[in-house]
Amino acid sequence: MSKKDEVVVLDFWVSPFAMRVKIALEEKGIKFEAREEDLLGNKSELLLQSNPIYKKVPVLLHNGKPLCESLVILNYVDETWPSPPLLPTSPYERSVAKFWADFVDKKIFEGGSKIWKSKGEALEVAKKEFEECLKLLEGALGEKEYFAGNGFGFVDIVLIPHISWFYGYEQFGGFKVEEQCPKLGAWMKRCLGRESVAKVLPDPAKVQEFICKLRKMHGIE
Amino acid sequence: MSKKDEVVVLDFWVSPFAMRVKIALEEKGIKFEAREEDLLGNKSELLLQSNPIYKKVPVLLHNGKPLCESLVILNYVDETWPSPPLLPTSPYERSVAKFWADFVDKKIFEGGSKIWKSKGEALEVAKKEFEECLKLLEGALGEKEYFAGNGFGFVDIVLIPHISWFYGYEQFGGFKVEEQCPKLGAWMKRCLGRESVAKVLPDPAKVQEFICKLRKMHGIE
Repeated sequence: MSKKDEVVVLDFWVSPFAMRVKIALEEKGIKFEAREEDLLGNKSELLLQSNPIYKKVPVLLHNGKPLCESLVILNYVDETWPSPPLLPTSPYERSVAKFWADFVDKKIFEGGSKIWKSKGEALEVAKKEFEECLKLLEGALGEKEYFAGNGFGFVDIVLIPHISWFYGYEQFGGFKVEEQCPKLGAWMKRCLGRESVAKVLPDPAKVQEFICKLRKMHGIE
Repeated sequence: MSKKDEVVVLDFWVSPFAMRVKIALEEKGIKFEAREEDLLGNKSELLLQSNPIYKKVPVLLHNGKPLCESLVILNYVDETWPSPPLLPTSPYERSVAKFWADFVDKKIFEGGSKIWKSKGEALEVAKKEFEECLKLLEGALGEKEYFAGNGFGFVDIVLIPHISWFYGYEQFGGFKVEEQCPKLGAWMKRCLGRESVAKVLPDPAKVQEFICKLRKMHGIE
């Protein structure tokens, strides 16, 4: 496919799922337009029509054709614009990457949300569960530079946007990810050194302000 | 890769997720050994070592290398033994298939479990939600024979094992899937006519007995 195709991302600045798509497109060198959605107020007709099942961002519109769910979109981006590849070439290594991407999807955002939604005993349980998940991810990273080895790839793109929320989790939870998981901390710094990541990730302090707003909406403060 | 490789499935007869893997291998004509796990009693050392994160079936052991999570395994099977293909060839159609497979994963088993776990008002809510999910799937199927068109493929394999639990849901919920969703009902019959599906799916009456056992374990009856 041509790099001159029309590529639009229905976006929300603080969504780690939308960030994944933008980082992947940046890595591929694909020009795209990010259209900010008003998720807390009015969703656009285009969003409702493009993702009638979940009505969520991100949606990738490729020459008008909609794709939904960030992991599905990342796979599509990798198949449509193969260079540089995000997934490894061997079926086994691809499966390992998809396993961990799915693990991040199931555990990290929801696990983090439990931290900012909780107090007292429930907060301690949420922190412990979240830290256990991070330790499993650190185990999967091991001594490698990136999850699949030397190159920044699929699992890195799936996980790295979540770190923009970590500062908020740390403030409400009273812990430091880097202290609990130093190898993951070093990996975060490496990723932040990449142009694609630095360009896409928002300021953690602004994300924390957003989390404060969510807490108010949930009647927590 | 050769069809003479050693292929083992760590299995549990009533798991729709394990059934997916067995149907995919049957479709590919790959010989495999299904090793039944005692999930309600003692899990094997092999299971605990092969899937340390979730400790669940199915696990596919391909020449001793473990793969976990049924959708990841199906992707691996399709990449490792490409003929006949389970996923469509175009990236867009592949994404549509993966979207619906993910939808089934998120909604159907958990949605069905809410039916057999509930009573009274909660049961009515659970039934309504489950029926809405089935109607969305029926919409995705449309007038086609199978989810991707004329050929039995990825989404069919992902969804069809769940029908072995439908009889149980119907008994506890007091509804008939075929009456709510006649096109889906016709699709079920078509799938059951395939050798791979007929061979792998257990007797719905036995699944219902198993659900009764689960209800007792959960203190529902």
